[in-house]
Amino acid sequence: MKIFHTERHAGHDPQFFLVRGRPTAAAEQPERARILLTAARAGGHDIAEAPDQGLGPIADVHTPEYLDFLQVAWAQWQALPGASAEVIPNVHPGRAGGHYPTGIVGRAGWHTTDTGSPIGPATWEAAYHAAQVAVAAADHVLATRSAAYALCRPPGHHAFADTAGGFCFLNNTAIAARRLRAVHGRVAVLDIDVHHGNGTQGIFYADRDVLTVSLHTDPNGFYPYFWGHAHERGQGAGEGFNLNLPLPAGSGDAPWLAAGRVALERIGRFAPGALVVALGLDAAESDPLQGLRITTEGFRQMAAAIAGLGLPTVLVQEGGYLGPELGINLAAFLAAFESAHSPRKG
Amino acid sequence: MKIFHTERHAGHDPQFFLVRGRPTAAAEQPERARILLTAARAGGHDIAEAPDQGLGPIADVHTPEYLDFLQVAWAQWQALPGASAEVIPNVHPGRAGGHYPTGIVGRAGWHTTDTGSPIGPATWEAAYHAAQVAVAAADHVLATRSAAYALCRPPGHHAFADTAGGFCFLNNTAIAARRLRAVHGRVAVLDIDVHHGNGTQGIFYADRDVLTVSLHTDPNGFYPYFWGHAHERGQGAGEGFNLNLPLPAGSGDAPWLAAGRVALERIGRFAPGALVVALGLDAAESDPLQGLRITTEGFRQMAAAIAGLGLPTVLVQEGGYLGPELGINLAAFLAAFESAHSPRKG
Repeated sequence: MKIFHTERHAGHDPQFFLVRGRPTAAAEQPERARILLTAARAGGHDIAEAPDQGLGPIADVHTPEYLDFLQVAWAQWQALPGASAEVIPNVHPGRAGGHYPTGIVGRAGWHTTDTGSPIGPATWEAAYHAAQVAVAAADHVLATRSAAYALCRPPGHHAFADTAGGFCFLNNTAIAARRLRAVHGRVAVLDIDVHHGNGTQGIFYADRDVLTVSLHTDPNGFYPYFWGHAHERGQGAGEGFNLNLPLPAGSGDAPWLAAGRVALERIGRFAPGALVVALGLDAAESDPLQGLRITTEGFRQMAAAIAGLGLPTVLVQEGGYLGPELGINLAAFLAAFESAHSPRKG
Repeated sequence: MKIFHTERHAGHDPQFFLVRGRPTAAAEQPERARILLTAARAGGHDIAEAPDQGLGPIADVHTPEYLDFLQVAWAQWQALPGASAEVIPNVHPGRAGGHYPTGIVGRAGWHTTDTGSPIGPATWEAAYHAAQVAVAAADHVLATRSAAYALCRPPGHHAFADTAGGFCFLNNTAIAARRLRAVHGRVAVLDIDVHHGNGTQGIFYADRDVLTVSLHTDPNGFYPYFWGHAHERGQGAGEGFNLNLPLPAGSGDAPWLAAGRVALERIGRFAPGALVVALGLDAAESDPLQGLRITTEGFRQMAAAIAGLGLPTVLVQEGGYLGPELGINLAAFLAAFESAHSPRKG
């Protein structure tokens, strides 16, 4: 399979992570991408660095003031007296709304929903090039009508149009989906990360041309908490074009694959021209986040089932954290997908 | 002057406070109330413990699910594996909305806007009795048409109907204002805390019978960041019944007192039946928060000017942190207010 990646993620190495009120080691580490790339190499895939195609595809999804914020935040934060080494906001506008402030502390709170996305000196570079990886994979799929894997780091599916959260800054999955939609008209997103793809859902919530489907751990007790509930179905013109399939924490292969069949049935009825898979691997039983308990065989079966749709497909890396099976699960997924995938020619 | 207080604040002793990304000592300490009470005693005022009048007056301002959350949060948080000693949320719904989760981590993020309001085992008791202090002062003013001072701790003006933030849990000022409004019909709130009274503004934003006026440090670079801008004037029926008078950081007595004259002129035109003053003392030049530079003489002049309205008045303690002039400024304010206050008999 064609694989795109970037070496320019590595400078983004977030340190701060608050879990149940306690600072702990950050889970989204550069080592993740190295492990995934090694696994892809061992699988004999065709690997390329993504070219830089500029801000255009990113600005199709994210707002101008948010993109400005991501580029200036770290330097402005460092100029504050006594500031931390990373941008770690802790004051947010909340549901009561409010107005956009000019200062960096307020802007940081406006543009983030949690403390899980610290901004360091190389965060913008990493997020920008991760988005370029998604763009390159989408372009490859547009050109070949086959499949490609985008090894994106940092991940993206918790980023809304103007907020970072949950280790994410730019929504790589949404950027790929919008690029495909411009050609195919109708695109489906299937998110199999252990967390609900709240940013992706939010970006396309009123859009009937992008069907968003997510399987994930029940958000009542799991990040992102406020989205991913089954009753969220889209709004306005997009009503009925969002499907959430939450699973109880600790669910294993059988209920996950059953939910996958429901998801694929809905995508089949939608009849999109292309598919983006938000490929989190953190549903794995050995993942430190411990939301679901999916085995390597479970990932293999999910990959084959998705490939069976026969759609031009971009696989976008989302979560998946340091554990003994991270690379193994990626390799298994890619191999199973490739052997089951024979796209219908348009 | 009649003064109400409670001894039941003291168990609330928050520890966690994140400033520009760094954990630091919490500013809202029990010692604050002891210093204020000592200053009130030295001034010869008539001091009484507030009686417990139940949840009714609190539930007139705050939502049922928020009041339930405040009562159960600490115990449920303690039952989480590896949880911190205080409830410190770090994942918030943000402006994108979302839905109310059942789990305590999500509920904590839903009901708070920042990490500045940690919930400990005695937080509910303290907040509940602080609200009773405000109720007792309002009842005294209703009965006598004179003035009373409510020594509330924790403070309240950053609490919206269903969120805590900025050291605040229950909005004592709003609770007093609503109690007065039930009798007087029209009530004004004048907030002279160094921070914008965002919660109070939010609670009454669509209400034309409660005029909210706030003087404070420019929120573009100062808490609460997202509210307190001059263009926020109310909404719906309340359009035109909110007035914000932000001042540049570091402003001293002269611009503060000039803004006070604008505020009092607006309140005079509104012609309310009663007044609530959100009496923060953190605009003081010696306050650790260093927003404005108001002298003791400045507080004295402000007090006399407010008293000159001749309105039945509840003074509700808001911010004001440990510094050499905390008690001095309260004593000066109360004495100047009392000597200038001769309410018109209704």
